[in-house]
Amino acid sequence: MIVKSAEELAKKQREISIAEFFEKNRHLLGFDNPRRALLTAVKEAVDNALDACEEARVLPEVNVELIQLEETRFRMVVEDNGPGIIKKQVPKIFGKLLYGSKFHKLSATRGQQGIGISAAVLYAQLTTGKPATIISKTGKDNPAYQLKLKINTQTNEPQILEEAEIPWEGKEHGTRIEIDFEGSYMKGRQSVDEYLKETAIVNPHVTIIYTNPEATQLLFPRAMEELPPEPREIKPHPYGVELGRLLKMLEITSAKTLQQFLTEEFVRVGPGTAQQICQNAALLPNTKPKQVSREMVEKLHKGIQATKIIAPPTDSISPIGADQLEKGLRKEVNAEFYCSTTRPPEVYRGNPFIIEASIAFGGEQDAESTVRIMRFANRVPLLYQQGACAITQAIQATAWRSYGLQQSKNSLPAGPCTLVVHMTSVWVPFTSESKEALAHYPEIMKEIKLALQECGRKLSLFVNKKRRIKEESKKRSYIEKYIPHVAEALQEITKVSAEEKKKLEENLYELLEHTRGELEELTVENPEYDEEFAKIGAEEEDSEQEKEQEKPEKKEKQKKLIE
Amino acid sequence: MIVKSAEELAKKQREISIAEFFEKNRHLLGFDNPRRALLTAVKEAVDNALDACEEARVLPEVNVELIQLEETRFRMVVEDNGPGIIKKQVPKIFGKLLYGSKFHKLSATRGQQGIGISAAVLYAQLTTGKPATIISKTGKDNPAYQLKLKINTQTNEPQILEEAEIPWEGKEHGTRIEIDFEGSYMKGRQSVDEYLKETAIVNPHVTIIYTNPEATQLLFPRAMEELPPEPREIKPHPYGVELGRLLKMLEITSAKTLQQFLTEEFVRVGPGTAQQICQNAALLPNTKPKQVSREMVEKLHKGIQATKIIAPPTDSISPIGADQLEKGLRKEVNAEFYCSTTRPPEVYRGNPFIIEASIAFGGEQDAESTVRIMRFANRVPLLYQQGACAITQAIQATAWRSYGLQQSKNSLPAGPCTLVVHMTSVWVPFTSESKEALAHYPEIMKEIKLALQECGRKLSLFVNKKRRIKEESKKRSYIEKYIPHVAEALQEITKVSAEEKKKLEENLYELLEHTRGELEELTVENPEYDEEFAKIGAEEEDSEQEKEQEKPEKKEKQKKLIE
Repeated sequence: MIVKSAEELAKKQREISIAEFFEKNRHLLGFDNPRRALLTAVKEAVDNALDACEEARVLPEVNVELIQLEETRFRMVVEDNGPGIIKKQVPKIFGKLLYGSKFHKLSATRGQQGIGISAAVLYAQLTTGKPATIISKTGKDNPAYQLKLKINTQTNEPQILEEAEIPWEGKEHGTRIEIDFEGSYMKGRQSVDEYLKETAIVNPHVTIIYTNPEATQLLFPRAMEELPPEPREIKPHPYGVELGRLLKMLEITSAKTLQQFLTEEFVRVGPGTAQQICQNAALLPNTKPKQVSREMVEKLHKGIQATKIIAPPTDSISPIGADQLEKGLRKEVNAEFYCSTTRPPEVYRGNPFIIEASIAFGGEQDAESTVRIMRFANRVPLLYQQGACAITQAIQATAWRSYGLQQSKNSLPAGPCTLVVHMTSVWVPFTSESKEALAHYPEIMKEIKLALQECGRKLSLFVNKKRRIKEESKKRSYIEKYIPHVAEALQEITKVSAEEKKKLEENLYELLEHTRGELEELTVENPEYDEEFAKIGAEEEDSEQEKEQEKPEKKEKQKKLIE
Repeated sequence: MIVKSAEELAKKQREISIAEFFEKNRHLLGFDNPRRALLTAVKEAVDNALDACEEARVLPEVNVELIQLEETRFRMVVEDNGPGIIKKQVPKIFGKLLYGSKFHKLSATRGQQGIGISAAVLYAQLTTGKPATIISKTGKDNPAYQLKLKINTQTNEPQILEEAEIPWEGKEHGTRIEIDFEGSYMKGRQSVDEYLKETAIVNPHVTIIYTNPEATQLLFPRAMEELPPEPREIKPHPYGVELGRLLKMLEITSAKTLQQFLTEEFVRVGPGTAQQICQNAALLPNTKPKQVSREMVEKLHKGIQATKIIAPPTDSISPIGADQLEKGLRKEVNAEFYCSTTRPPEVYRGNPFIIEASIAFGGEQDAESTVRIMRFANRVPLLYQQGACAITQAIQATAWRSYGLQQSKNSLPAGPCTLVVHMTSVWVPFTSESKEALAHYPEIMKEIKLALQECGRKLSLFVNKKRRIKEESKKRSYIEKYIPHVAEALQEITKVSAEEKKKLEENLYELLEHTRGELEELTVENPEYDEEFAKIGAEEEDSEQEKEQEKPEKKEKQKKLIE
């Protein structure tokens, strides 16, 4: 019956190192093709740089340099003015997957997995066999040191090839990473240029100096001298904790009683709430955590759900702010109408989050194609996997016709419009490790829709007003057309002079103005608009394969916004 | 300047266990909502069962049982007649993520990552705190044993709670897994019912006995008594090996010379090809692998690309077969026209793969909505993440108007049509660990498009023929309408009797038939169609949140296929 026995099959069973796993599945990390690889590497390095600066409360200044070494090989150098990394930590941070400071806490940072930058190092060594070079300095009086390292993929451990103290003139503190890898540099909406520009839009406190492979330097200077409020770390909220996690927490807690456990390990649980939970769970508050059985945990879990607990505090997350978001959009898109909103905080799986949205309508935007979508998560632009993202799905599920855009059922709306959505949370759920698309949690989808609807209602007011004015001015022009004829007829009847007739005509015009009132003006001023800035990323894409997004709009400058 | 120093920040750096990582990111594994969780658990268990049976060359018979314990809690029992698992291996296979036999080989199996079934165990313990129960028996004379186990998420190691030898009456060999977890049972196109039905369609050698939570038993008996050819394991092809991987392989090889290394570690490299590669790389064939420097590996890598090497053998992958695929589709969809194709093998990153496609057009399918898409990878139905899949994108990028379907630019075509695409490969690249969508490799996209175009051309022949016949029959009916009038006129002129007039009329009809020829018939017989079978999964979905797919078509039986 059995041709191969269980014994025979067992011989092939083996442990898989996480580094081997991602080496083979590098597309999961965003390294599936050379163009995307270039973007992903820059993104991981810049995200880390910004997180480090903000955590140390330093206004970030990031230097990004891409040098083309061969047709398909690039060198990336990213340098920040952050706090630096102590020498002992460097190898693990850059040379080990799943290592970091952000995974075990709940805080609104860009990185969260402990995978990103080491993935870039892994990809570099996979495609060129070369180690990464890291330089770091932690303060004026500390030496700078340089490490060259690789990842041992079989063990997922760093392998240091060289280390040395080196001079780093004029640098008080900061970190610099240099890697060589296979890539492809292209302009367009999924380019490094676009990514850095969008990063500047949603991080007005950041200065980015970027030298692209064509040796053109783009400078994005900071627009404000203030850091966003520090993202505070919070403890988990009871509503978001699964039964199994609760079981584990009770095993490892140092709390002496159940009540103490509840108040110490969770946010929004004071002694009163803790007692209420215990009561609803039919458990004694002074039960020792070690003595809580699985059945009791199940009761506790149900008890939590049955207790009213305040939503988690939201000072742990800081939105960009509707005004700031709109300001960035005005710089990028020259439109007729802008609006934006920041929703109140909501909760999914116990994690607080905030959705912000902004709309730019009309103006120089293409009226025929589908709307342009700009997606952001914790101030990071998301340029790939638009189709897989909860934001895209929420846009498709919103009824845009009533707001004045064209839309087929369950499709993206069409019209001269840009939609911006930003999610910030202590834990952003992505559909893959490459962190390019939000996962489809219903609570998140709902909030995105509400934000879009809020903006949509304002948009429809504008679109309707525009239509009204257009119709009104059409009507007036009709009436005006007949005034000379009326005047002529009156002249004939009353036999007045040509001069008097002219006066008559003027009177008639005046009467018309008077009864109908002044025609509303819809001229729009957008002093924020920066044509040079807007051009970045809007170039025609020269790739055949990258069809994930619409062709960039034509950027002919139209002088009259309302026609 | 720096508010938090590098030393302070370093304190928070920690290693992250892969089990912790996936516990927090369970949506990556397909456990993001209760409905999908139910499907994913079943899928992982069934995929493993089928792989085990096929590897042992046993005709698979799989028993799937879902029992609703509470409103949101389910017990899943999946039992197979496979070779069983030796006791020592059970804990690691079910209780450790990234452990398995399929990762380190290239072979067209369903599982490939060593994550799936342990992820289901992890999800079960996370949502109910309960261990998994595994029973296995490896042969008639061996005892069956039962293990209850959990995963220690901090270490990613199995934790055995109970083990015992037990009687397993009437079972010679096989494995049984039982887990309790939070889930939600719904009908529809993303249901367990649909998944098992589609599994039966593309695995005609499998018998599935399925008891759903409503205690209804669905039986999918096997349609053929033959296993598909054994998926052969192959060595990597030189073209697909990245530089870094080559470097690693040279480090760990036991080969004595470069030439031996090339012939032993790769497929399609004989002594001649190996010498050619060495020559193109300007390296000596008798160089010791240990002495090959990074620079030499770079030369070797370029040498490989510069050498003509035959494509990898394709007997390692076994397509379902165009006929078999179409047969399955006929059972599921009652249409007017079917066609299908199996493309020749192609290669991406050194991995051979085959694309198959099939189309069912017309008949009972809704003409107004977008086409229905059925996606498969290594004989596994893919029900989620349609928007993120390379198959969907390839369909959108195909010009369907020329084949007779409606289509807006870059959208899914609309029309009474079902499109089936199957990819089989020794390594299928997925966009996430949940293995629901194919990654966008250009080589794969291209093959899918070619397969669809092949089917599309056949479709257009049918659609044109149908249109022609429709027009022709319209014309004839016009002419026929006038025959009585012509006959009457002739009667008046020639003054013949009413009887003669009738004969005249008949003659005229005959003449018409004679000159225009017989009207082609387009009646279609589809004895394969199974109405009861087709109904599974086609129920209206009762969920608000699951909008990933189109509403199921109405299944009113239309008797006349051509109107």
